[in-house]
Formats: sequence, C-alpha cells, structure tokens
Amino acid sequence: MNSNKQTIPIVQKILSVNDDLASRNKNLLSEKGILALNIMASPGSGKTSLILRTIESLAGRIKIGVIEGDTAPVTIDADKISNLNIPVVQINTGGECHLDASMVRKGMDALDLSNIELLIIENVGNLVCPAAFRLGEHKNIVVSSIPEGDDKPYKYPNIYRGLDALVLNKVDLLPYVEFDIEYFKAGISALNPGVEIFELSCKTGTGLDHWKEWILQQIEAD
Amino acid sequence: MNSNKQTIPIVQKILSVNDDLASRNKNLLSEKGILALNIMASPGSGKTSLILRTIESLAGRIKIGVIEGDTAPVTIDADKISNLNIPVVQINTGGECHLDASMVRKGMDALDLSNIELLIIENVGNLVCPAAFRLGEHKNIVVSSIPEGDDKPYKYPNIYRGLDALVLNKVDLLPYVEFDIEYFKAGISALNPGVEIFELSCKTGTGLDHWKEWILQQIEAD
Repeated sequence: MNSNKQTIPIVQKILSVNDDLASRNKNLLSEKGILALNIMASPGSGKTSLILRTIESLAGRIKIGVIEGDTAPVTIDADKISNLNIPVVQINTGGECHLDASMVRKGMDALDLSNIELLIIENVGNLVCPAAFRLGEHKNIVVSSIPEGDDKPYKYPNIYRGLDALVLNKVDLLPYVEFDIEYFKAGISALNPGVEIFELSCKTGTGLDHWKEWILQQIEAD
Repeated sequence: MNSNKQTIPIVQKILSVNDDLASRNKNLLSEKGILALNIMASPGSGKTSLILRTIESLAGRIKIGVIEGDTAPVTIDADKISNLNIPVVQINTGGECHLDASMVRKGMDALDLSNIELLIIENVGNLVCPAAFRLGEHKNIVVSSIPEGDDKPYKYPNIYRGLDALVLNKVDLLPYVEFDIEYFKAGISALNPGVEIFELSCKTGTGLDHWKEWILQQIEAD
C-alpha cells in the first residue's frame, strides 16, 4: 500500500551566503592539498610574530602562503612576511572588523595555490566579530597572551569556542604580570574539552618546537 | 520686491537612530551636570584597572557611577567596581561587539543620576567596532598598553581618531617589551593633533596623578 508513496525531499538548513562560500573555499583548498589555519586574536597578542616564527621553523620543509587581514591600508605585517620571501596577500577590510569568506576567496585567487601546502590566514585583531565568520579554514586557532589577563575566556567566550588549538604567547612576561595559568586553562577547557594549549614565547623561542610539531601533524593527517 | 519670499527650510542631515539617541543621552547628562567618559580599548589593556584606580583617587571628592559593557553575562569587572561601593550597572551586549546609545540609555535609567557627577562607561574590549557608535559621552578615551605594541594607531586608526585623551598603560613593562614610544605618539598625534597622552601604570601607580588632575579639570570645565 506504499507503492505510490512519494520521496519527500528533506529541506536542509539554508546556509548563509558566507557559510556557503566558506565551504567552497574549504573544498577548493582540500582539493589542492592545502591545510588552512585561521589565526584569531586580540590586537597585539602576537599573531604576526607567531606566523613569522612558524615560517622560520617550517619554510625549509613545507610551502607556506599567507593572507593578511587588516582594517587599514597599511602593510606593516605583510611587509614582515614578504621579507622572508613567502607569498603574501594583504586584504584591507576597509574598516570592517573581521575577515569573511569572500575576502579570503579574493586572497586565494591572488596566490599560486599549486605552490602552497600551508595557508595561514591572519584575521583582524578582534576577540568578538571573527568568531561568527567562517573563512574556509580547516583549523581555528586563537592566540592569547599573558599581559591580556587570565579572564579573557570568561569574558569573550564566543571566540574561544570550537578551537583546534590555543596558543598562549608571551610566557616570558609571566614574572612581571599577574596571570593564573590554571584559571585561564580551565576557561579554555570548559569551552573546548581536550583542546591543545601551547604555552610559548615568540620573543624567546620557548615552546615553539611543540607548536611546530603540531602543525606538521595536522598537515600529515590532512 | 522680496515681500513674498518664503522662508525655505534647510534640510538638515538626518541623524542615524543611534546618533540621535546619543545626542539625547548627552543632553540629559549635561542637564544633570554629569561628565560622561567613553573608555575604549583592546581586551586586556587595563580599562577596568584604570577605572578602579580613578575611583580610588577621586571617590572622596566626586560622585562616580559606572556602566560596564560586556559581551557575555559575567560580572567579573562589575563586581570589582561594586566592591568599592560605587553604583555600577552591567550591560550584557549579548555577543554584540560594542555598546550603543540605546544600551547606555538603559544603563543611565538604572542609575540614580541625581547622585552622579562623573559617569564612566567601559566599552566592550575591541579596537574596531566601538569607533562607529556614539553613546552620549562628552569625552572619548582610548587605553593602550605597552605589550600591545607601538604600531596599533597605524593599524587601527579609526578608534584612535577624535580622541580627547589617550592613556598608555603598563609602562612598568617597558624594560621587558620592545616599544618605541616616539613612534607610537607620532601615530596618535597624526590622528589627534595636540591630544593629551598619559603614560602611566595602573599596577605601580606611576603617572596616575596627572590623569586624575585632567579628569578634575574636565569636570570643572563642564
């Protein structure tokens, strides 16, 4: 008696324009064998320093490209990366407070993707808005730093949610700043059970080996 | 021959809803004899520490009230202020990246304005979005800090534009961090010729007297 039953299409949740474009970006990057990292942080936490250190330690082994997001047409960060002979595209958001998938696509189009294995995307320095915009990344990473204070995961939870790794930078300043690492880590772990947390200093180099090994593992697993 | 000339109304620029409400807030505060400060900064620069220090040094002389903006329903900062027996209202923006004039109005309505001479509004920690939303404040202040780096006025110019004062916090960390104060100040002054810049440390207390005197002058001039 079910012979005439029609197949009823399931109406899927309509993806937002940005989510849809982010999925396309991610698929294209995956097809090309590229691992893409979305690096988010407060201004001045050391995103660019971490990218420079990562390039220094990995550029001989893997091919890296960088997309730099900035709210203003200044090339301070992009110049530092270009000086290391790494392909870099700067995206001026025109005052916008975050990158989006459309901007990242323009950046991808301006790079020679056939010659990149690791694409590092430096988001605009902002602990609020970038949380809501997927870019096409495979891994989401927040860089925190000791002088920002240990309460940030509690006060800006959205950006700390759904992370693949958390980098805690500027541990060289621990002797001079009040910072309860266990309280900070408890805040991160409550939002991301079992997430990797890298305590390091881009200034002194402490802890960078562990971070480098993690990236290489992600590329191999990709 | 001009006797029949009509008066032609000049069409004024239509203010945005937020600007209009901000003007109403400002007018109400002025009528009540209240000076309102909008304190903006990157997360972790020390906005709350500066407010606590300001309360400590001025609470005996003037009546202070505080509106605390947070993106999440945590009362970490508001509790610290309440502990000093200062009237404080916390506004949870529900994930929004800035305060707006409507939120501040709700905060004003929850305070006894007849018992306040200085209203300190702590904006959400964000160097991008708060720049575009007037609240009804009389003075706009950005708190920068040494570990954020000396290039921030060049990379986030919108928030540094149109300031009445710039507080450079955490000068106690200068021995441990690379920071070119002249480069930083040149960036601030290019956007705000002649603006007051206060170099201080909320941790050690260095430079706070100068800041306190400036606030008292603004109240007297108000």
